[in-house]
Amino acid sequence: MAGEMRTVQWDPERHQLRMIDQRLLPERLEVVSYQSAEEVADAIRLMVVRGAPAIGAAAAYGLALAAQRASSAGPEQFRRELEQAAARLNAARPTAVNLSWALRRMLAAAGSMEAASPAEQAAVLLEEAHRIADEDVATNMAMAAFGAELIDDGDTILHHCNTGALATVDWGTALGVIRAAHEQGKNVRVLVDETRPRLQGARLTAWELEQYGIPYEIIVDGAAGHFLRTGQVQKVLFGADRVAANGDVANKIGTYMLALAAHENRVPVYAVFPSSTADLSLSSGDQIPIEERDEAEVLGIQYHGEPVFPRGAKARNPAFDVTPHELITALVTEKGVIYPPFTENLARCLGAK
Amino acid sequence: MAGEMRTVQWDPERHQLRMIDQRLLPERLEVVSYQSAEEVADAIRLMVVRGAPAIGAAAAYGLALAAQRASSAGPEQFRRELEQAAARLNAARPTAVNLSWALRRMLAAAGSMEAASPAEQAAVLLEEAHRIADEDVATNMAMAAFGAELIDDGDTILHHCNTGALATVDWGTALGVIRAAHEQGKNVRVLVDETRPRLQGARLTAWELEQYGIPYEIIVDGAAGHFLRTGQVQKVLFGADRVAANGDVANKIGTYMLALAAHENRVPVYAVFPSSTADLSLSSGDQIPIEERDEAEVLGIQYHGEPVFPRGAKARNPAFDVTPHELITALVTEKGVIYPPFTENLARCLGAK
Repeated sequence: MAGEMRTVQWDPERHQLRMIDQRLLPERLEVVSYQSAEEVADAIRLMVVRGAPAIGAAAAYGLALAAQRASSAGPEQFRRELEQAAARLNAARPTAVNLSWALRRMLAAAGSMEAASPAEQAAVLLEEAHRIADEDVATNMAMAAFGAELIDDGDTILHHCNTGALATVDWGTALGVIRAAHEQGKNVRVLVDETRPRLQGARLTAWELEQYGIPYEIIVDGAAGHFLRTGQVQKVLFGADRVAANGDVANKIGTYMLALAAHENRVPVYAVFPSSTADLSLSSGDQIPIEERDEAEVLGIQYHGEPVFPRGAKARNPAFDVTPHELITALVTEKGVIYPPFTENLARCLGAK
Repeated sequence: MAGEMRTVQWDPERHQLRMIDQRLLPERLEVVSYQSAEEVADAIRLMVVRGAPAIGAAAAYGLALAAQRASSAGPEQFRRELEQAAARLNAARPTAVNLSWALRRMLAAAGSMEAASPAEQAAVLLEEAHRIADEDVATNMAMAAFGAELIDDGDTILHHCNTGALATVDWGTALGVIRAAHEQGKNVRVLVDETRPRLQGARLTAWELEQYGIPYEIIVDGAAGHFLRTGQVQKVLFGADRVAANGDVANKIGTYMLALAAHENRVPVYAVFPSSTADLSLSSGDQIPIEERDEAEVLGIQYHGEPVFPRGAKARNPAFDVTPHELITALVTEKGVIYPPFTENLARCLGAK
């Protein structure tokens, strides 16, 4: 665990959702409680919670909260409120497909027992949210075991963004692989891309690595190429927000340049994600919607306490980019490690799901 | 001009060097006066003045200051103090070769009239420093004229670090090309890499572009690949701190990944620099020393006023990287635009110097 609790955790006493406010780390570990789907949608949009698997689980609990609040209404109103809440949650962020995946799964669970009372449906929806959360942890442990086999003793691993316990319900995806290798006794070091604009590497990954006792150093994102070209990196690992049928990976902005520099220097590149991140309905990454976020995320930094940008400066802020599958050595999922040709092997490996 | 004065300017009344303190921009435009080579060396090391051509001129004036102070000494002591000052200035930063180029030129000017009195030599050294500074401006205008021919009306140009008036005595190298194209009436837009760790793009390039009335938007360095891959950029321009005989370019950290992403997406890449930045004594960029600066430059940012890094976090901070010549479309110098094969054409074009 990253803290004393899961990143996304149900409070059975108070019937509410509790989440670590990731915007405050590493300075403060604060936990916020949520009573409604609207509040959860805001938390996703404002990135109190982020990371594709974590926002999937958060959205599931958000819908469970909506069901709980509407459980004394009539069946029609219950259904209407559930659908409104799902639409609101789904609109919170467009790129990570785990969000819509979790909501679809929740709505299907409700739909399969439409004859039951709203209160009964609400109870089932909460169970389904628990299942999504628990499965996420189990899934992460499984992919960590597969991924750790790819890590060698003595590796320096370059890692982008945060893909740890904080990006998931618990344990993590790419960072979970690193953690598993470390727990197997392999000596690993991590070069942590700070990951502008919101600095999830510097804030969250560094904070997690401190807790796990894994040695690391932070670098600016633009420095990755230098370390790759000078032979100081053995593996590149990152997560994914949506993976197309051909293996193209949408992930945090900066991933594409990192993968390109690794590929150019023959350093293996692994994207680590649960099968719920794959979107086999899209034939290529060019079809993945790329969220452009507020320019305040770019302009909101200071350097040694002083302003950095000229007053009135404008910025562009795409939050994700697409890494073409040609740059990726393998995809690591809970079903196994998938090598090219990805279109064939992704469908075969995940299609059974 | 970037401000009301040259970036590096002699004050003939007070016999001292005046330089814009670039660490304070864009918040404050402050000018600092220097009376000794030691002070100038510190200013170079601390990056009060930065940019390869600007630190060359600053070092020349630094040596002129040392000569001025020692001009009443005996010839032997004068020579010794001059050499000590040159060594001190030369050690201030290792990568940009303009520093040692300017100092060698200054020492040669003194050496050619060793029979003259220290006072006469000091006067000649000041003249030589003026010549280096004036030539830098003329050189920049010449390369801007050559470079502007490469820019098309309607281009969006991606630019790394600062290469404007502030990086030179005046006018600039890569940014000077953009400025010349703009003054020719071409519609150009600039995507400004913020250029972590010290954010010279966000601070200095954005500030200069505001003054020149050239439209721009700032992006995080990791976002460049997204804009290149989605066809939103027509040219990539940057400067250089040292160029090897084969055309490999050492420049601000992050340049390599940018050039790689541009090359991959068939966007032309131009490195713009004066011939004093070429170091034909090095056969390839692998021989260029890469300065690693203090980790405080990486760790010294805040996000919306709050700390970002865990306490005790460590960072690596290489200040430059090497872009292999295969990724570069052409080198733009005051002698003309140089295309591959670079080893042959660089020697032919610059060898005459």
